[in-house]
Amino acid sequence: MTAPLRLVVMASGRGSNLRSILNAIGNNDCLAEIVAVITDKPGCPAVEFAAEKGIATDALPLSRGADRGAWNIELAQKVQRFSPGLIVLAGFMKIVSRDFLRQCGAPVINVHPSLLPAFRGKDAPAQAIKARVTLAGCTVHLVNEEVDAGAILAQAAVPVLPTDSAAELHQRIQVVEHQLFPQVIDWIGRGRLSLTGEPRLTGGVDADAHLISPRLL
Amino acid sequence: MTAPLRLVVMASGRGSNLRSILNAIGNNDCLAEIVAVITDKPGCPAVEFAAEKGIATDALPLSRGADRGAWNIELAQKVQRFSPGLIVLAGFMKIVSRDFLRQCGAPVINVHPSLLPAFRGKDAPAQAIKARVTLAGCTVHLVNEEVDAGAILAQAAVPVLPTDSAAELHQRIQVVEHQLFPQVIDWIGRGRLSLTGEPRLTGGVDADAHLISPRLL
Repeated sequence: MTAPLRLVVMASGRGSNLRSILNAIGNNDCLAEIVAVITDKPGCPAVEFAAEKGIATDALPLSRGADRGAWNIELAQKVQRFSPGLIVLAGFMKIVSRDFLRQCGAPVINVHPSLLPAFRGKDAPAQAIKARVTLAGCTVHLVNEEVDAGAILAQAAVPVLPTDSAAELHQRIQVVEHQLFPQVIDWIGRGRLSLTGEPRLTGGVDADAHLISPRLL
Repeated sequence: MTAPLRLVVMASGRGSNLRSILNAIGNNDCLAEIVAVITDKPGCPAVEFAAEKGIATDALPLSRGADRGAWNIELAQKVQRFSPGLIVLAGFMKIVSRDFLRQCGAPVINVHPSLLPAFRGKDAPAQAIKARVTLAGCTVHLVNEEVDAGAILAQAAVPVLPTDSAAELHQRIQVVEHQLFPQVIDWIGRGRLSLTGEPRLTGGVDADAHLISPRLL
C-alpha cells in the first residue's frame, strides 16, 4: 500500500481549497494527508480551520519593507521541516521566489482561476469577463519562477453567463477548483502523474476530470 | 413565423462545417437556409458538395501576385448579390479585408479551433499541444479586421489527451465545431443573439451549448 502523500498547504484566506482537499481525503478520494498549513496571514480563516482540525500550523508574515529574500528562505525552512512530498498553494497570496522553490523540499502546485495561458495574473475572472469569453475555468499547474506559467497539470471549464459579474464567475470557477485540485493531488499521490520531467498523466485518461460541467450556481 | 436566415457560406476545403450546418438545417435544429456557397478554390470538395445539393455556388480565386484589394471588393459583390442575412466562414482560408466586411452586406462569423483569446492564428491545435494545455476547444466569433479577434459568440471545450498529435486534437475539436457552429447560427436565426452592438445571448442560457463534452474519438 502506498503511503499517503505528505502535503504542506499554504494559504492566506478563507481556506476553501484547503477544506475541499481535506474533504476529499476524508472521502478516500485523495490519497494524501495534510501535515501542515502554513500562512503569511496569522489568524486567517484557513489557518484557524486547520488548527480546529488538529493540523499543525505555522505562520510567517511578510512585513512591509521587510527583506523578501530572507522571508522566502525562512518560509522554505518552515515548510521543509514537515518533510512534504508536495506543497500546495491554496489561496496563498504571495509570490514565492526561486530560492523558496529550490529549498522548500518538494514540488509546488497552484490553482489559478483561468484557462491558462489566457488571463495570467490578478483578477483573472474579471479579465475573462472583459474579454467576453463564454468559457472560463481553472488550471492546476506546477509553480516555477514565472507567475502562472509553470507546466499545466489539469484544467476544468465552466460557462460564463451573459449576466455574470466577476464575483459570480469567480464563485462558479471555485466550484470546479474544489473538484479538480484534490483530483490532481490524488493523481500525484497514486503516482499516476509524475512531476519530474515533463508532467504526463498515466493509467488511462479521466476525460471527465479535464472537463467538468457543474450545475450552474 | 420567422423567415429562415439567409446564409452565404464561404469555404475553401473539405466542407465539413458546411455539411454540419446543412444537416442541422435538415433536422430543424438551425433556423436558416444556405443560399450560396462561395469559394476561392474552384473545385474544392465544399463547393462540389454544395453543387450536388442544388445550392448556388460561385468562385473567385486569388491568383498569385493579384490585387488583393480588388479581389476583396469583387468577392464582397459576389456575396452581396445573394442578399445574405449572415455570412459564414466555414474553412475559408483567406483573410478578408475591411473593405470586404463593409461591402459584403451582412455580419461575418467564423469558427476558430482554439479557446480564444488563446492560440490565435495558424495551427491552433499544434499551438495548444505545444503549450501543454489539457483543455482545448473552438470559438465562434464575429469577424473584424484583426485575425481571430472579433467578439466571441460561443465556445466549446474538449480534453487534450497526453498522447494527442495536433491532427488528433484537431479532429476532436472539429466534432464540437460541428455542434457549436449550427447552434450559434440558430441563435442568430431566431433573434436570440443579436450581432448589432455588443453580442449577447437572450432567452435563457443553454449552458450545455457553451460546454460540450463529446465522447472521445
